[in-house]
Amino acid sequence: MVKLGESTVCPVSRSLDIVGDRWTMLCLRELFMGATRFEEIQIQTEATPQMLTSRLKALEANGMVARHLYSEKPRRYEYRLTEKGREVYPVVQALRAWGETWCKAPDEGVAVLYSHQECGHDVGLDNVCTHCGVRVERKDLDARLSDKFAKERAQRHAVFKGKTGPV
Amino acid sequence: MVKLGESTVCPVSRSLDIVGDRWTMLCLRELFMGATRFEEIQIQTEATPQMLTSRLKALEANGMVARHLYSEKPRRYEYRLTEKGREVYPVVQALRAWGETWCKAPDEGVAVLYSHQECGHDVGLDNVCTHCGVRVERKDLDARLSDKFAKERAQRHAVFKGKTGPV
Repeated sequence: MVKLGESTVCPVSRSLDIVGDRWTMLCLRELFMGATRFEEIQIQTEATPQMLTSRLKALEANGMVARHLYSEKPRRYEYRLTEKGREVYPVVQALRAWGETWCKAPDEGVAVLYSHQECGHDVGLDNVCTHCGVRVERKDLDARLSDKFAKERAQRHAVFKGKTGPV
Repeated sequence: MVKLGESTVCPVSRSLDIVGDRWTMLCLRELFMGATRFEEIQIQTEATPQMLTSRLKALEANGMVARHLYSEKPRRYEYRLTEKGREVYPVVQALRAWGETWCKAPDEGVAVLYSHQECGHDVGLDNVCTHCGVRVERKDLDARLSDKFAKERAQRHAVFKGKTGPV
């Protein structure tokens, strides 16, 4: 748990104390993609269970994720973003826009296509709908995975299940 | 240097390979605040010279920072953001907005106040000017440090200079 009133009032530094770690951000990415269970997050982030456990614990301690019991025997929890967690979305969105623009070859295509639920138009890489001109948050958007990204994610799932055997 | 065409087409993951490190982001924060020299960045990030050297080298290798010779004897370089580097600003901006909102006590105040150069109005934590309704980028904004943050930064400078002696 990161405490308030530390050595700096810089909000960027404060944020980075909590989310300035690659695995934490990948974990948040999966939660934004709708994952709720440890295994799903583990498969798609390719984090080790130890790495993921420490990140989820920290996210919970920082009030960004809440655990909900979904199975008594064995005891299993779902992870859901709180309001504080959901409000990190602009960071993920900005990383996405920059990554699509600067870190990809032209033939790779956009990994996830987001459309504005209200009007159905593609919002591109922006957080403002080009059609309606209104600010859009994650909750206002429908997501559709590109074939390439869907295949990649399915493959990670298959590899994991093949490795661990049927559950 | 991070190569294109890796194991994932996820743009968030690609971005994090480059900027998903606390020290890299703090270094970018300083470059956005106008720092150009190694020592200035070192003072305000409180990174060790080794840590900062590795981050600046990676930023240069990834085409986000360009080095410019400003002194022949001794050989000294300035670091300036390229277009690719400048375009990371929305990530910093989103971290700032989230940090100000969720990681600070009410009495701490906003660390840096940004106003829209064109109209002079405070833009708050947003990337859209509330007065003009237009999207604003870093280059469109004037920055004013809060007294608290200015003092904190001056103190870091004084401590560093006291430690290393007059240069």
